[in-house]
Amino acid sequence: MSSSEHNVTAMVIPSEDQHMSEYIAACDERRAYISGFNGSAGTVIVTLKDAFLFTDGRYFLQAEKQLDSNWTLMKSGLPDVPTWQEFLSKNLEKHSRIGIDPTLITAADAESLETSLKAKESHLVSLTDNLVDFIWEDRPPRPANKVFPLDVKYSGESHQDKLKRLREELNKKPYKAMVVNMLDEVAWLFNLRGSDIDFNPVFFAYAVVTHDNSLLFVNTSQVDDVVRTHLGDPVQIKPYDEFFPYLRGLGGEVDLSDELQVLVGDKCNLAIVEAIGRERITILRSPIADFKAIKNETEIEGFRQCHIRDGAALTRYFAWLEEQLNSGTQLNESQAADKLEEFRSELDLFRGLSFTTISSTGPNGAVIHYSPDPADCSIIQKEQIYLCDSGAQFLDGTTDVTRTWHFGNPTDEEKRAFTRVLQGHIAIDTAIFPNGTTGYIIDSWARRPLWEDGLDYRHGTGHGVGHFLNVHEGPQGIGVRIAYNSTALKSGMTVSNEPGYYADGRFGIRIENIVIVRDAQTPNNFGNKGYLKFEHVTLSPIHKKLIDASLLTAAERSWLDAYHAEVLDKVSPLLKNDTRALAWLERECSPL
Amino acid sequence: MSSSEHNVTAMVIPSEDQHMSEYIAACDERRAYISGFNGSAGTVIVTLKDAFLFTDGRYFLQAEKQLDSNWTLMKSGLPDVPTWQEFLSKNLEKHSRIGIDPTLITAADAESLETSLKAKESHLVSLTDNLVDFIWEDRPPRPANKVFPLDVKYSGESHQDKLKRLREELNKKPYKAMVVNMLDEVAWLFNLRGSDIDFNPVFFAYAVVTHDNSLLFVNTSQVDDVVRTHLGDPVQIKPYDEFFPYLRGLGGEVDLSDELQVLVGDKCNLAIVEAIGRERITILRSPIADFKAIKNETEIEGFRQCHIRDGAALTRYFAWLEEQLNSGTQLNESQAADKLEEFRSELDLFRGLSFTTISSTGPNGAVIHYSPDPADCSIIQKEQIYLCDSGAQFLDGTTDVTRTWHFGNPTDEEKRAFTRVLQGHIAIDTAIFPNGTTGYIIDSWARRPLWEDGLDYRHGTGHGVGHFLNVHEGPQGIGVRIAYNSTALKSGMTVSNEPGYYADGRFGIRIENIVIVRDAQTPNNFGNKGYLKFEHVTLSPIHKKLIDASLLTAAERSWLDAYHAEVLDKVSPLLKNDTRALAWLERECSPL
Repeated sequence: MSSSEHNVTAMVIPSEDQHMSEYIAACDERRAYISGFNGSAGTVIVTLKDAFLFTDGRYFLQAEKQLDSNWTLMKSGLPDVPTWQEFLSKNLEKHSRIGIDPTLITAADAESLETSLKAKESHLVSLTDNLVDFIWEDRPPRPANKVFPLDVKYSGESHQDKLKRLREELNKKPYKAMVVNMLDEVAWLFNLRGSDIDFNPVFFAYAVVTHDNSLLFVNTSQVDDVVRTHLGDPVQIKPYDEFFPYLRGLGGEVDLSDELQVLVGDKCNLAIVEAIGRERITILRSPIADFKAIKNETEIEGFRQCHIRDGAALTRYFAWLEEQLNSGTQLNESQAADKLEEFRSELDLFRGLSFTTISSTGPNGAVIHYSPDPADCSIIQKEQIYLCDSGAQFLDGTTDVTRTWHFGNPTDEEKRAFTRVLQGHIAIDTAIFPNGTTGYIIDSWARRPLWEDGLDYRHGTGHGVGHFLNVHEGPQGIGVRIAYNSTALKSGMTVSNEPGYYADGRFGIRIENIVIVRDAQTPNNFGNKGYLKFEHVTLSPIHKKLIDASLLTAAERSWLDAYHAEVLDKVSPLLKNDTRALAWLERECSPL
Repeated sequence: MSSSEHNVTAMVIPSEDQHMSEYIAACDERRAYISGFNGSAGTVIVTLKDAFLFTDGRYFLQAEKQLDSNWTLMKSGLPDVPTWQEFLSKNLEKHSRIGIDPTLITAADAESLETSLKAKESHLVSLTDNLVDFIWEDRPPRPANKVFPLDVKYSGESHQDKLKRLREELNKKPYKAMVVNMLDEVAWLFNLRGSDIDFNPVFFAYAVVTHDNSLLFVNTSQVDDVVRTHLGDPVQIKPYDEFFPYLRGLGGEVDLSDELQVLVGDKCNLAIVEAIGRERITILRSPIADFKAIKNETEIEGFRQCHIRDGAALTRYFAWLEEQLNSGTQLNESQAADKLEEFRSELDLFRGLSFTTISSTGPNGAVIHYSPDPADCSIIQKEQIYLCDSGAQFLDGTTDVTRTWHFGNPTDEEKRAFTRVLQGHIAIDTAIFPNGTTGYIIDSWARRPLWEDGLDYRHGTGHGVGHFLNVHEGPQGIGVRIAYNSTALKSGMTVSNEPGYYADGRFGIRIENIVIVRDAQTPNNFGNKGYLKFEHVTLSPIHKKLIDASLLTAAERSWLDAYHAEVLDKVSPLLKNDTRALAWLERECSPL
């Protein structure tokens, strides 16, 4: 079937959106099939004559290798290279009809794209079937792994109570219904987990909540009686494929004669909006995202506990790695990462990694999103900085930790930069701020010590972290993105604290803990706002050998010693059977 | 003449806009005449039946005293009290025609008001003559004081060069002309000063700059041959009253057949826009405001020099005040302020105060905009905190300085709060940050030490400062107003550094220096952005008696001692004839 039968003159598979794991997977596999390029980010545009792949600097070399002569590589970020959105509105002919799979683009992105296409009187055309799927005969089936309940002893709140809270929220406006399309929101709402997407314990599903009904649309083969019993009668399980037909008939279920009565989250896809009708819909930041961002006391205690276990695995790994390098063993970055996974996999409640381990030696550490290719990666060098960013999923929480080591003799430059990063890390860890303060406001606290030396880093300072869910979640964060200025940090939120410094082609430094926002007891309470602080839950020593102690204030020095005493106290009981790890931990946790 | 002859059903005199000194004066005097209320802020709305005065909490008592029974006081800020804009659009009858003097409202404010009036199908009606002026028979003439040139040895750049820079800026778009209506921009552009408005060395004028002509519209009685010679032939001096007729004929002077060819600053009044025609106009932040914000090396050196002299007057005053209080003299706040003015008036190049001196004892210090009423103010108490915020105009610069003293025995609470404010002050003074950073981003550095104790302050941390111009000027600033996030701090900008703390009904603390943004020499230059720092120019000791030294870091202690050594070094040579002041300065500047 050719695209002309759909009466479109171009087709687009848009690029990833980091907040939409289900889209990424769906876009990635189709992009890889049609173009041959299997990097993690890129947009495909196919016209009647030509084919274009847009990707960024991380993937120029890889794309050049993988694309054949049918394809033109568009190097995003280079001067004079348009974004794919600009390309559609500027480079295509007038009156283009651009085919798109409406489940693979957010309604908001489609709306702004439509606006920019007006200049050339072009239009987006929603295709009921994805054009790639028409020609992809041996397409592997989508993962359909077993869904399982998360016990309330881990989630801390029954799904009945969560549904009640959500309905109370809907009543405020009031809305007649809410459509939930983010996979982590569905999983959180029903206290269910799955494994359809690597690293993210979610499953393909949609949900609709009205005042009388809760509907979960899921491939019924993934759901067994345990799940049905867990959900109980008030939750109706419907086949996944009935979701869009249900939305089209929603007006028959609830009275939608007034406008704007259906709430959908701001990441909802275009297909949902088209199925219900734009005029019936209010698009807002999902209230479930806001609920989910604030962890309850059970989840917080789970975060604490899983980080103690995680700290034990990290200790065993770093002690092992040091010994290997000291004994001259040749280890590549991927082999090392595998060993770390092995240690983690022995931990209680372990359910897989939370992202691909970044195990990087020397210059690879300066590539912020580096992950070692098992078939082609570097040997870890004792005389280079080693940066390891890793994490795991546990039933009681999610971890994400970065430590930076030098197993030989670090240079003064490396030590000074590491110390500046550490000072930024401590500045966030010890922060106290009034309710209402956003992560945008305090981001500069992490950068100040680096700026003093004319250093900086080109990424955020912290992202939200899911509870046995996606390791990156919104809406809060600490960073220079103005979006972080719309969400105040609130007691119970989780966020990473990960300043860094990267010397291109030489080394990378990052120190990352997960912290939880908690109420602070201050001597005063000016403005009756209440004040907040952070509690760190990550427990792994910070490499003293990389510290230039002369730069530290007395308070910073005390912070480090206290942190190390805490790490030793909490983690050492789990290391009874690993004397190497215990000895290593005692050494690394001794006072500076 | 009644308002019905203008076919209007209501009339408004809008409230102050702190950026528009000429509007404030013009609004204030008419508001005072028509209502009897002479506070510095308030909006008057007169309908065919009623009369309303809107003012804020600072003036409730005063307004209640001054308004007669014809008037209804609208207490702005109280629950259920609408803003005057809401009142016009919600409380007035449908189809109201609301008379306004278009020279007394910005085009932007008028535009947003028109939008909100649509709900009631009401409209603003620009009146060619102010209705108050019709009935105000013995209205005193507007000030028309002599205008004088500011020598290039103080301004650092000839007005010819400034006009050339402005034309280059206009050419970039290109625009055909720029209309300048801010008094300080006119004064800066032509290197002229005046004294038509208290504390601000400006004069009533407008200017128009085209590629061929520079026109200055000014009451010609204010301009003598010295000014004419200074300006030279290329600048045409026109009578002030010819400004609006000239604008209405502008299309005959320059080709305005294309749209948007006339640039006006974003604070321009509605009358200008109506005279030229909205479709011909582009409203942007004035490029002159951006030029003016960055001081040249001559202006910077002037700032340094005038602050040394100002420091000498402050020293003489504080030493005198201490002696008076120690000897039991009864002095009220206003008498003390007069003595400070007397010391300042003896200084070289002095041209008056830059704002009303805030001389406040105890609880009055917690009223952030307090100024003592000479007829009714407090006696300064030795056992209360004394806060003094003051400044002066000099030919070579403008000063604005706050110091907080305790001439008796401060409490632990006072010392701790003062020390937190000092730590915030030092955090800004020692800041280093990359080019591109705004005052919004670093504001939290000043608050962090206060937040640690659960303290805060409800004002900005810093405002721009004019060079022998308005003591408050934009567009830069340090603070929580999101507008400060649109202007990066740039080398050559001036800004105040004034964190504070206010215990309502008890005391106020503020420590304010003027700092200049300068290039920083950092060991690295990550991202090739260039890094910036602050240079303080204010020279007056910070009260050691109010410091709890146990809270200071070693670096903060060193900063204080170095600052005091600098103050003593620079100011003491000017105190040869005042042994009391010199002895006091030596004591106050000794190491902590």
